[in-house]
Amino acid sequence: MPSRRASTADQIKDYILTQGLHPGDHLPTESELCERLGVSRSSVREAIQTLSTLDIVEVRHGRGTFVGRMSLDALVEALVFRGVLSPGDDLQALREVLEIRQALDLSMAERIVAALRGTANPSLHDLVDQMVASATAGETFAPQDRLFHTELLGHIDNSLVGQLVTAFWDVHTAVLPRLGLTLPADLDQTARAHRDMLEAAEAGDVDAFRTAVVDHYAPLQRMLDEARPPREDARGAGR
Amino acid sequence: MPSRRASTADQIKDYILTQGLHPGDHLPTESELCERLGVSRSSVREAIQTLSTLDIVEVRHGRGTFVGRMSLDALVEALVFRGVLSPGDDLQALREVLEIRQALDLSMAERIVAALRGTANPSLHDLVDQMVASATAGETFAPQDRLFHTELLGHIDNSLVGQLVTAFWDVHTAVLPRLGLTLPADLDQTARAHRDMLEAAEAGDVDAFRTAVVDHYAPLQRMLDEARPPREDARGAGR
Repeated sequence: MPSRRASTADQIKDYILTQGLHPGDHLPTESELCERLGVSRSSVREAIQTLSTLDIVEVRHGRGTFVGRMSLDALVEALVFRGVLSPGDDLQALREVLEIRQALDLSMAERIVAALRGTANPSLHDLVDQMVASATAGETFAPQDRLFHTELLGHIDNSLVGQLVTAFWDVHTAVLPRLGLTLPADLDQTARAHRDMLEAAEAGDVDAFRTAVVDHYAPLQRMLDEARPPREDARGAGR
Repeated sequence: MPSRRASTADQIKDYILTQGLHPGDHLPTESELCERLGVSRSSVREAIQTLSTLDIVEVRHGRGTFVGRMSLDALVEALVFRGVLSPGDDLQALREVLEIRQALDLSMAERIVAALRGTANPSLHDLVDQMVASATAGETFAPQDRLFHTELLGHIDNSLVGQLVTAFWDVHTAVLPRLGLTLPADLDQTARAHRDMLEAAEAGDVDAFRTAVVDHYAPLQRMLDEARPPREDARGAGR
């Protein structure tokens, strides 16, 4: 990255901070920024593009430039591409994403259970019913699945975990078809494991919640295991 | 993002995939890409800039454009900015990053201990000695701290976890001084907890490893707690 562009981007970030702007707030026009920062229009334009890729600013065409939501979309884009690029590594990138999803879900088990213990969650149950019905009909249920995880993690006081889990969910879902992999046949287990997670949380049972999380990933895990010989075997007996 | 640019970026990504290119491989020149993809030079230039921000390509000036390392630098940049932007949220962004670092470290406890059980790790011990010596002298030890975590996580078969932990480490370290926070006075505990983590792993003791991980974050946690009243209190008794 040319240092000029990096520095104009840093100047714009400093401007956002010193002015106390928040996501959604309007930024000055390109020519106002040129004048204020003492840099050329092309520097401002390049800096805005870099910041827009990172969702630090958002360009709404015909309406101007705004402070962005700082979502993790850039992370998703980079990881999806890395996941697709590395099939030569025997799906290793996809395994790593799966492990992190499971690790984050397990690490938040106590807090999710504490938040849901003794509550009723009709919208989550509704999503589970839809997933089970789809699985029974042999259909996939990606939108409900994604929404379930987002809503579940919305109950804990850490928005970054929810965003990361959703980001990794998106990576996973985008990479599978590009690698020519279809969703596992045993989608039934995945659908039902969502119900187990929800019921365990409402019952205040942390151990049952953890078991359901692991169950929930088992079909995906098996699919990856069957797509290539397990790494241990490959390395182990020198076969 | 204008659809034209997104689509040229997608075309370049497809080109990398269909040609089977890997990180470090040379990409065609700007004019070759224009011709091959049938788009204008400015579209190619914008797409390259977007992909370069995401580290999907790397522009080396005077040498051309290469497939990038797909690092998580973009994630770090976006999260650092979000962490700095939200001090009005009572350091919540920083707390969330800290929780995720701890969750990832704890989730990998069994695998790190399995990898290090019964081994000798002179370079890790050397880093610990340097950290303890610095803490005793009242000095900070950020480079050794970062290297310790990177090297420790290098022992497990998931490169993404190591990259994420390092990325969050960088976020943390970059955000603290910008918020006017200094490192905690009880750096001694942090330094010694690294030694406890290492010795527990070498001894094959998962529980001791987990305890040391929590100990290791305690000074940072206390610093954040003291920087504002705990959220529970603020919400609880209506004080």
